Amino acid sequence: MKFSQFFIPTLREAPGDAAVASHALMLRAGMMRRLSNGLFAYLPLGLRSLRKLERIIREEMDATGALEVKPTVIVPGELWKESGRWDTMGEALLRVKNRLGGDFVVSPTAEEAVTSLVRDDLSSYRQLPLNLYQINTKYRDEVRPRYGVMRGREFIMKDAYSFHVDEASLNGTYQDMGRAYRRIFRRCGLSVIPVRADSGAMGGSGSEEFMVESEIGDNTLVLCKACDYAANVEKAACKPDFAPLSAAAKEAAAALPPVSRIDTPDVKSIAELCGFLKMDAGKFIKTLIYRASNIECGDAEARGFMSPEFFAVLIRGDLEVNEAKLAALVRAGEVCLADDADVVRLTGAPVGFAGPVGLSGLTIIADETVSAMSDAVTGALAGDAHYRNVAFGRDFTPDIVADIRTVVAGDRCPLCGGELYEKKGNELGHIFKLGYKYTKAMKVSFLDEDGKARTPIMGCYGIGLDRTLAAVIEEHHDEAGIVWPVSLAPFEALIVPVKYGGAAKDAADRLYTELAGLGVDTLLDDRSERAGVKFNDADLIGIPFRIVLGEKNLAAAPPLVELKRRDSGDVRLVELSRAAALIDEEINRRQV
Amino acid sequence: MKFSQFFIPTLREAPGDAAVASHALMLRAGMMRRLSNGLFAYLPLGLRSLRKLERIIREEMDATGALEVKPTVIVPGELWKESGRWDTMGEALLRVKNRLGGDFVVSPTAEEAVTSLVRDDLSSYRQLPLNLYQINTKYRDEVRPRYGVMRGREFIMKDAYSFHVDEASLNGTYQDMGRAYRRIFRRCGLSVIPVRADSGAMGGSGSEEFMVESEIGDNTLVLCKACDYAANVEKAACKPDFAPLSAAAKEAAAALPPVSRIDTPDVKSIAELCGFLKMDAGKFIKTLIYRASNIECGDAEARGFMSPEFFAVLIRGDLEVNEAKLAALVRAGEVCLADDADVVRLTGAPVGFAGPVGLSGLTIIADETVSAMSDAVTGALAGDAHYRNVAFGRDFTPDIVADIRTVVAGDRCPLCGGELYEKKGNELGHIFKLGYKYTKAMKVSFLDEDGKARTPIMGCYGIGLDRTLAAVIEEHHDEAGIVWPVSLAPFEALIVPVKYGGAAKDAADRLYTELAGLGVDTLLDDRSERAGVKFNDADLIGIPFRIVLGEKNLAAAPPLVELKRRDSGDVRLVELSRAAALIDEEINRRQV
Repeated sequence: MKFSQFFIPTLREAPGDAAVASHALMLRAGMMRRLSNGLFAYLPLGLRSLRKLERIIREEMDATGALEVKPTVIVPGELWKESGRWDTMGEALLRVKNRLGGDFVVSPTAEEAVTSLVRDDLSSYRQLPLNLYQINTKYRDEVRPRYGVMRGREFIMKDAYSFHVDEASLNGTYQDMGRAYRRIFRRCGLSVIPVRADSGAMGGSGSEEFMVESEIGDNTLVLCKACDYAANVEKAACKPDFAPLSAAAKEAAAALPPVSRIDTPDVKSIAELCGFLKMDAGKFIKTLIYRASNIECGDAEARGFMSPEFFAVLIRGDLEVNEAKLAALVRAGEVCLADDADVVRLTGAPVGFAGPVGLSGLTIIADETVSAMSDAVTGALAGDAHYRNVAFGRDFTPDIVADIRTVVAGDRCPLCGGELYEKKGNELGHIFKLGYKYTKAMKVSFLDEDGKARTPIMGCYGIGLDRTLAAVIEEHHDEAGIVWPVSLAPFEALIVPVKYGGAAKDAADRLYTELAGLGVDTLLDDRSERAGVKFNDADLIGIPFRIVLGEKNLAAAPPLVELKRRDSGDVRLVELSRAAALIDEEINRRQV
Repeated sequence: MKFSQFFIPTLREAPGDAAVASHALMLRAGMMRRLSNGLFAYLPLGLRSLRKLERIIREEMDATGALEVKPTVIVPGELWKESGRWDTMGEALLRVKNRLGGDFVVSPTAEEAVTSLVRDDLSSYRQLPLNLYQINTKYRDEVRPRYGVMRGREFIMKDAYSFHVDEASLNGTYQDMGRAYRRIFRRCGLSVIPVRADSGAMGGSGSEEFMVESEIGDNTLVLCKACDYAANVEKAACKPDFAPLSAAAKEAAAALPPVSRIDTPDVKSIAELCGFLKMDAGKFIKTLIYRASNIECGDAEARGFMSPEFFAVLIRGDLEVNEAKLAALVRAGEVCLADDADVVRLTGAPVGFAGPVGLSGLTIIADETVSAMSDAVTGALAGDAHYRNVAFGRDFTPDIVADIRTVVAGDRCPLCGGELYEKKGNELGHIFKLGYKYTKAMKVSFLDEDGKARTPIMGCYGIGLDRTLAAVIEEHHDEAGIVWPVSLAPFEALIVPVKYGGAAKDAADRLYTELAGLGVDTLLDDRSERAGVKFNDADLIGIPFRIVLGEKNLAAAPPLVELKRRDSGDVRLVELSRAAALIDEEINRRQV
């Protein structure tokens, strides 16, 4: 391809709103352009890299036996109503009414569409496992799209959905996907951190997110300094910093003086209480009233929750409740602290004085730490009053005890006890076990070996292509521009004749033909620009191998050219006649 | 690929609504499934053919120097407001409001998006010509989607937009596209009829549609029995069946007795008039009042139309007005006969008595045929009255004279005078010269060689991929199923061991490996189904070469297999050891 016949509108400056390197460089290198807030069009150069990424993903997916399909982008709302997500997805779901008044969705993911396809044609266990994937346009109606394609509204996702006779089969495919994802990211030259993740609105449990470290990351990762433990803070656990009550401790708790009320005028926060009573925060039990929205339909009742939307949540006073863990526990779309008015109504006390002793009408959820508290202070369900001598199991019994604390830097690794630290990260991929959520809601079944109807279990595996491309640029760039790994470079080699004319033109054309013959993706800068302009553009668009043809070097015997590697910056003179073979060798060596 | 590991849910019967062969066969062969009315998902088998079609189109587009880009599917409404199509596109345009109240469009075509991209980065004539294309999801909100993917709501289109310094350059690319389209359809094994077409809502003139003959076609084609003239009836012309008025005739007309009024009580239609006056329909001038909608903004005024929406249209009594030609002439989105009330108001006479003599306040458009009428009968602009002795040029003068007649079978070819006939057709592709419509409306400019700002001229070139695939099936099928041309076959060869076990399994596996080694796309039917079931499925999914491995033939010395060609049905026994090479040869011979 000749530069003059291609369309690479490079820019000296990126627009002011391009706050991160990948966003700025994709614009400056002429890879893409903004059509509107969160909507980006790929120009020819950017599309070449995107297609190479698509190919890598397709190859690795196909190698696992996954089969590519193509549902529509516009999907009937009916399917989303069947799964229940029409109600639970909130405003990020872009809904459309067609001219006949029908409800449609611009797909953000395709659980419903693919489950519906499988439902239509699944009859026998012999058809399973089945792993269907697509690489297709998706849309999420972000309120605040930013960082270019890193968080755009329209994006391209590879999403796969697998169906299985049982959990063992699901586990097999889940592992295969994990391995395929590692290969995909390795081939992209990306350092990813696989972390345990909250599977959020997707439902189900058992999931792994593939993160890249990023200052602008949406996610907080909790990592261990000593081992390879890595988790999303939304799901991170830590080594317990409490001992379960021993038999002796339980006896002591039972023998504790009864709960007694202490006056605590105007003392509402834990900090105030610590000061007032001169005790550690770890001696208090915080009681918080949470409101849950979008609890899975019919679930609250089935699970015996006393109120379908409110919960009392207990946690040791020095800790914070992790709302993602709490939401996952009660299977809600979201949880948030209840309004003051609701707190007053539900606890019969002003805000700041809730406590578990005597609390009724609400399901009580306690963090594990609370189960070790045999002599605690809590709110007394009355204004300006607290209880002391409160013992777990004697004075109150939670309905649910679970890990709902927020792990923070300095906590101890649940695997090895090492010190945990935090990093910001961006999610590029996500694999998870969906379980029966969609197959049950959408009534999918197959006949097993005994001719009995059963529901298949599902897994789900996504990769965001645009943000993966952006992440590659984040990891591979310098001040001058992008430093593409060979696997995703829009072109592998760039021929730059200092002047495209005379002997240099002949040599450049011959070298181009030679490289093309070897299957090397080559761009020839045939523009009549100054050498400096061409070199700057070369560095900016970041093609791995640059061959400069200058008059003096070409006049040497034998003729020489300058070969520069974009990554190391190494420059050396090589014989013109050997240049193509050398580059071909290097490319093949890198791709092994 | 092994059949058991693929997903080919074949059906014995197609659903009742599958009225055409391609729709029924795509469902029965497990190529696709319906998600909703007009929305179809491709299953793995169908997607393989679709991808092959994509590749053919991409190769041919790239060979012309066109560059692939990828605008978004969801496009800001602002761009459509700039071009004016937000108002003119009507209800087929699917509009969406996002959560922030912004207007968006689910793209049916991408003139606006691509023009906006070029506008941002076009500066110099040296960047032109530029031909940008995409192969991407489109959506048209059809009221009555039908015939499967032949007329779906969501579809995949290759659409290209070219930008030029002048018309000569546009003509060059337009010709290149015409040749590329012929190659694309030839490679698909399709017999297409290139016809002159009305470019409709796309604007501009100079266009060619690529049609396939089809009983269910949306279009009526007018073809010549003697030469290769072919036109969409919306634009078809014919050899004039009238002589322009000679000097003598004009004199005679001037000497005609003056217009005289005749009473024609209750005689309204041409047929009634013919009976009443005992004259040929060809002696009357029909006067029709048309209402035009969506005339290009500001155009009506600039062109001096007396009413911005109503026109009086004259045509010889034995002919019909072609509304597509009329709409193109006045540059309106659509024209239709005016309501009775409007007719009465505008002509001052009951419906059926309009005429050009004395008519004022309306722009009068006459078909060419009227210009040869020197002694005609017309309505008298009064109830129950007509005029006779009406002469063109003496008694009335139209504002515009143009060809607006509907050509019908039996008319004469405008090129050779041969007899014209009609066929139904479906449009697969369309190339046309857009002119300045978008570049002017959206204010695109470049600096020419003299440093002067100029507006580029555009061309536009589309192919519908889904309907092309359906058209291939329409042209290549028989009672048993699809008969794929090699170029689009999901697999090129199918190995069918009568029983997949023992020696037959070994032979089948070896043959598979051999074919794969030669680069032949091969499917191996490893199912434990009866041979009849496998053969039926083979015929249904239509793979070009079928190799049957039976016990008896394999036991021969040397071992034999049965090689069947799906297209001719020819079956022959060939040596197992030569089968792969033979198929490879045949495939390569076909693709030359």
